[in-house]
Order: sequence, then C-alpha cells, then structure tokens
Amino acid sequence: MAEVDEERQVCDVAVTLAFSVLGKRWNGMIVSSLGGGPSTFVALRRAVAGISDTVLSDRLAELAETGLVARTVDAGPPITVSYALTASGEGLLPILDQLGQWASANLAERAH
Amino acid sequence: MAEVDEERQVCDVAVTLAFSVLGKRWNGMIVSSLGGGPSTFVALRRAVAGISDTVLSDRLAELAETGLVARTVDAGPPITVSYALTASGEGLLPILDQLGQWASANLAERAH
Repeated sequence: MAEVDEERQVCDVAVTLAFSVLGKRWNGMIVSSLGGGPSTFVALRRAVAGISDTVLSDRLAELAETGLVARTVDAGPPITVSYALTASGEGLLPILDQLGQWASANLAERAH
Repeated sequence: MAEVDEERQVCDVAVTLAFSVLGKRWNGMIVSSLGGGPSTFVALRRAVAGISDTVLSDRLAELAETGLVARTVDAGPPITVSYALTASGEGLLPILDQLGQWASANLAERAH
C-alpha cells in the first residue's frame, strides 16, 4: 500500500502547526470576522453567531497570545476596547476566503 | 466603532461551513496526509502522530460522510481497506499547503 512520503510528512508539521490554532472551534470565524476591520467585543459576539461571552473572551486572549490579534484600549472617555488583526492574522484572510469558497462548492449541499 | 459589514457576514457563512469540518481536531492533518496518496488505516495512524485508533476511525467515517474521503475494500486475499481523497478532498490540498506556509512563517517561532 502507499506509504506517506517524507516530503508530505514535513509539510504535515506545518499543517499541524496551523491547526494548533485553527483546529480550535471559533478561531477561524473570529479571524474572519475581524477581517472586516477592528471590532468591539460586543460586535464580535454578534458576528460570531453562537459563541458565548466566556469562550469569546478565552479565544481572543489565545489569539492575542499567538500574535494574530491585537487588543487596544482607548482611554476615552468612555474607555473602549477594540480588537484587530495583526499583520500575521491578516495573512490568514485570503486563505480563509479560499476555504470559504471551497466549502461553498463542496459542502453546501450537504449542510441542508 | 467599526461594525462587521454585510459582505463579510455572508463570507462568514462559508467560512463557518468550512470549519464545521476543519475545526474538528485531526481532520486537517488526515486530509493533508492523504494528499500523499491512498493509505491504509495503519499507515495513516502512523502519519497522524498522536491520534488514537478510535478517533482516527471516527474521523475517517465522518470525512467519508462529508464526501472528502472514500473507503475502498479490495476483496484480496488478503482483504485490504484503503482510504483516499475524493475530488472534493483533493480540492483542499492547495489550501492546506498555503495554511502550512502561513503557519511556518507566522507561528513557528512561537511553537518552540
């Protein structure tokens, strides 16, 4: 039977790394939503349908830790906190668009 | 503050659909591994480091259900079962490669 070749395994290291972030539920959707521009917590929660406050808060902290999202506090008044993609996070957007196109073409009919 | 615009929200539906499959742990790695060609269960388990028999079995059944993977039984003897990407699954490969490149460039130094 076919064996997985060495080049493919090297590639898998990078793909595994990618899914250490994107394989966690909601992270792809949060990055995609922030592709529309900086956002507040409340606007993000509305955009990412179904996510809870606690989980969104945890995910934003993780995405900041991983360097994909930056949190900015504007002293105001009123104090406002906004979230935006970093250059690293923005680098994901064209790939997420392609994933979306692939899903529309290949998964859409099965979702209904 | 910036609001998430309507076009972005429409896009998010497709991205959400994509992550209904790829947001589950291991699925990206399984598809990526099968990009090297058809594989047996044992070879796949070796290629996807850290996955258990039960989880690999469940994921392969789900990926077959979603139409990304095809399971073929060769009557033999000996009977052999192999797994391969469908056209739909193969459509993901160039996108997974880009995700891997993005991860190598943006996540690698944080992983160590």
